[in-house]
Amino acid sequence: LRIGVAGLGTVGAGVVEVMTRNRAVIEARAGRAVVLAAVAERDEARLAALDLGETAVFTDAMALASSEAIDVFVEVIGGAEGIAKASVEAALGAGKDVVTANKAMLAKHGTALAQHAESCGRTLAYEAAVAGGIPIIRGLREGLPANRIREVHGILNGTCNYILSTMRTTGRAFADVLAEAQRLGYAEADPAFDIDGIDAAHKTALLAALAFGMQVDFASVYVEGIRAISALDVEYAEALGYRIKLLGIVRQSGEGAAAAIEQRVHPCMVPIDSAIAAVEGVFNAVIVDGDAVDKVLMTGRGAGAGPTASSVIADLVALARGQRLPTFGVPATALAPMRTVPIEDRRGAYYLRLMVMDQPGVIADVTSILRDCGVSLEAMMQRRHDPDKPVPVVLTTHATVERSMKQAVSAIAALKAVAEPPALIRIESF
Amino acid sequence: LRIGVAGLGTVGAGVVEVMTRNRAVIEARAGRAVVLAAVAERDEARLAALDLGETAVFTDAMALASSEAIDVFVEVIGGAEGIAKASVEAALGAGKDVVTANKAMLAKHGTALAQHAESCGRTLAYEAAVAGGIPIIRGLREGLPANRIREVHGILNGTCNYILSTMRTTGRAFADVLAEAQRLGYAEADPAFDIDGIDAAHKTALLAALAFGMQVDFASVYVEGIRAISALDVEYAEALGYRIKLLGIVRQSGEGAAAAIEQRVHPCMVPIDSAIAAVEGVFNAVIVDGDAVDKVLMTGRGAGAGPTASSVIADLVALARGQRLPTFGVPATALAPMRTVPIEDRRGAYYLRLMVMDQPGVIADVTSILRDCGVSLEAMMQRRHDPDKPVPVVLTTHATVERSMKQAVSAIAALKAVAEPPALIRIESF
Repeated sequence: LRIGVAGLGTVGAGVVEVMTRNRAVIEARAGRAVVLAAVAERDEARLAALDLGETAVFTDAMALASSEAIDVFVEVIGGAEGIAKASVEAALGAGKDVVTANKAMLAKHGTALAQHAESCGRTLAYEAAVAGGIPIIRGLREGLPANRIREVHGILNGTCNYILSTMRTTGRAFADVLAEAQRLGYAEADPAFDIDGIDAAHKTALLAALAFGMQVDFASVYVEGIRAISALDVEYAEALGYRIKLLGIVRQSGEGAAAAIEQRVHPCMVPIDSAIAAVEGVFNAVIVDGDAVDKVLMTGRGAGAGPTASSVIADLVALARGQRLPTFGVPATALAPMRTVPIEDRRGAYYLRLMVMDQPGVIADVTSILRDCGVSLEAMMQRRHDPDKPVPVVLTTHATVERSMKQAVSAIAALKAVAEPPALIRIESF
Repeated sequence: LRIGVAGLGTVGAGVVEVMTRNRAVIEARAGRAVVLAAVAERDEARLAALDLGETAVFTDAMALASSEAIDVFVEVIGGAEGIAKASVEAALGAGKDVVTANKAMLAKHGTALAQHAESCGRTLAYEAAVAGGIPIIRGLREGLPANRIREVHGILNGTCNYILSTMRTTGRAFADVLAEAQRLGYAEADPAFDIDGIDAAHKTALLAALAFGMQVDFASVYVEGIRAISALDVEYAEALGYRIKLLGIVRQSGEGAAAAIEQRVHPCMVPIDSAIAAVEGVFNAVIVDGDAVDKVLMTGRGAGAGPTASSVIADLVALARGQRLPTFGVPATALAPMRTVPIEDRRGAYYLRLMVMDQPGVIADVTSILRDCGVSLEAMMQRRHDPDKPVPVVLTTHATVERSMKQAVSAIAALKAVAEPPALIRIESF
């Protein structure tokens, strides 16, 4: 099997390195030769850094995509559009199988690309696109096909999990920890993609399509990042027996024609003794809840050259073994459009932190509003007193509908004694 | 694809139930009809308990194995020999693919059966044989084929993990908790198979063969169960920052011709903050350490009708999709004999608990023996004093070779002041 790797950044270089180092075991498991036939890269320094031996070097990914020299095109260039997408389309059109780590591209164009691959009789594989080295695509598609999937949730972005973990263990503020993460290389210079939840949302959209056999619908994923999480909320979470995690959650409600899918990415408070709460630092984790298997958890490294290469090569070995599976578990033409549940219909508990002037009657006003909106209080906590400055008041609710909660929060925010926009965090118990 | 299920015990009934309930999603993912064509079972009550519709009923598993009515033979009868093995051999010989949950049979005859399957051009699949519903066979073979596997370790027996977890949370004695587990149905009436580590050893032997592409060598797995674990050791473990887990561990040392494999099952003290320590109760967990991916952890239910059926059906869907993989990851004829490392060569730290008469000079005698055997002490703890009764003295060592440790322990056991056989538990840090 002749492989062409387009893009020799961190991931591409990792693929070349692992393929070379572990060639003997990889070929024994693949049952045939798996050869790095060609690469495409313009950066001389990147090319010089690798021992490419007799591998052909292209400067143009498009030329590699349709080259006679390869059977499989590995796209590790990145970007939802542009050369990445054009080269993947070209490779499929030229009869190549495609392996990609590009979640942004698949989140936006996954259905069309899967259909294109299918019409060309080719395979579009993407183990590396979700949760790095964790074999979650195979775990779900090949490991759990007996199950009606009830829910998948996970920590899908290591940068956010590192920041939240560090905020918790050090008590430091978000901006401070983010700056440190940037210095350490755990966060990009432009961190928006990670900390605003976009990257996790791309992966969430792919997990939803695969879990429920529906078209990828990134546009309808509800996304909320971690910028607004304060040290105070992290501290209160701990006091209440929770940890704050940025989770991607997909869940099915209803069956058949009435089936609707929740797809959302937002900070969650999860019970401190839950499996997902224990996943700290840069690690990723995915929990699949199936009706036969109950819950299966997989954790591991969600990024980095080695783990991502491990997943790219898993796809190559599957192709070498002749395993051709539909991209999203069922034929691309059979993927139904996804009917999604708006976030306003989310039902669950909430954490609400207010900064209020410590004066008589405020709490009565707040609790009246909650009552009027049909929101039932579970607990309330006011630990500090100060006659001159706003003090935090924390409330948790019983399960309620988000619409009612939001209504209550806007009314509360409008109270004169409420000094800052309230902090609202969803509580998820799983 | 026409399926025949031999044995309608808990697992077989679970397979029938899940196949029936989830037929629509299973067939969508399989890309074709997956039909329960026949079952083999003599017990009328078991047959009556299931809605078998038009499924043919055999009373003889051997007749089912070679029946024209099926394409795949599912062996969920159990037992390493006898009808289970004979029917699997017959099915392969008759050109059927075989799916089994039978770890005892595979641990003892896995290499021969894999070779038989290969010579018949058939597939022998066994996702359900290791860690129940956790798709660890696929996780390892399909998910991580890029990796040189450094180590696999796991909690492979839910009964033992339930007993150890309960001993820890309640402080109760082994025998007491075992009796309770039997009442609750978490342990068998004859618990030896589980608590003596045999069941975990079967699974460990399969993981070793798969991880390293070698012949299954159950006979050389070192096995030690949990009968000797006392409430006192559980308490001291906690005080020292450890938890006691029964683990199956496989590890490679050396490369190529010098490669040797450690295969062992025994109680371990693991750091309280390690991922494996957090897996409590009846759950199973497997951690794979690969050179590219680093560590991937999978946890879930290791037994029960639903989880086991989930894994059996995963194998059926793979067959329906035409996925034919060598049983142990590489062709059965290419599996090298396993050169194993004797337990005496294990290198690591140890926990040693002595019951000694509290008299001058005892500790000096013990520490001299350790020094003479080349064992370096890490810590010592003696919390109780009693002039009349033996009191516990606990020691932990730095990494040492088991041979030296055992030498020291026999010399220590022979001391007059040492009242009981010493308790020795291996410390594993991973």
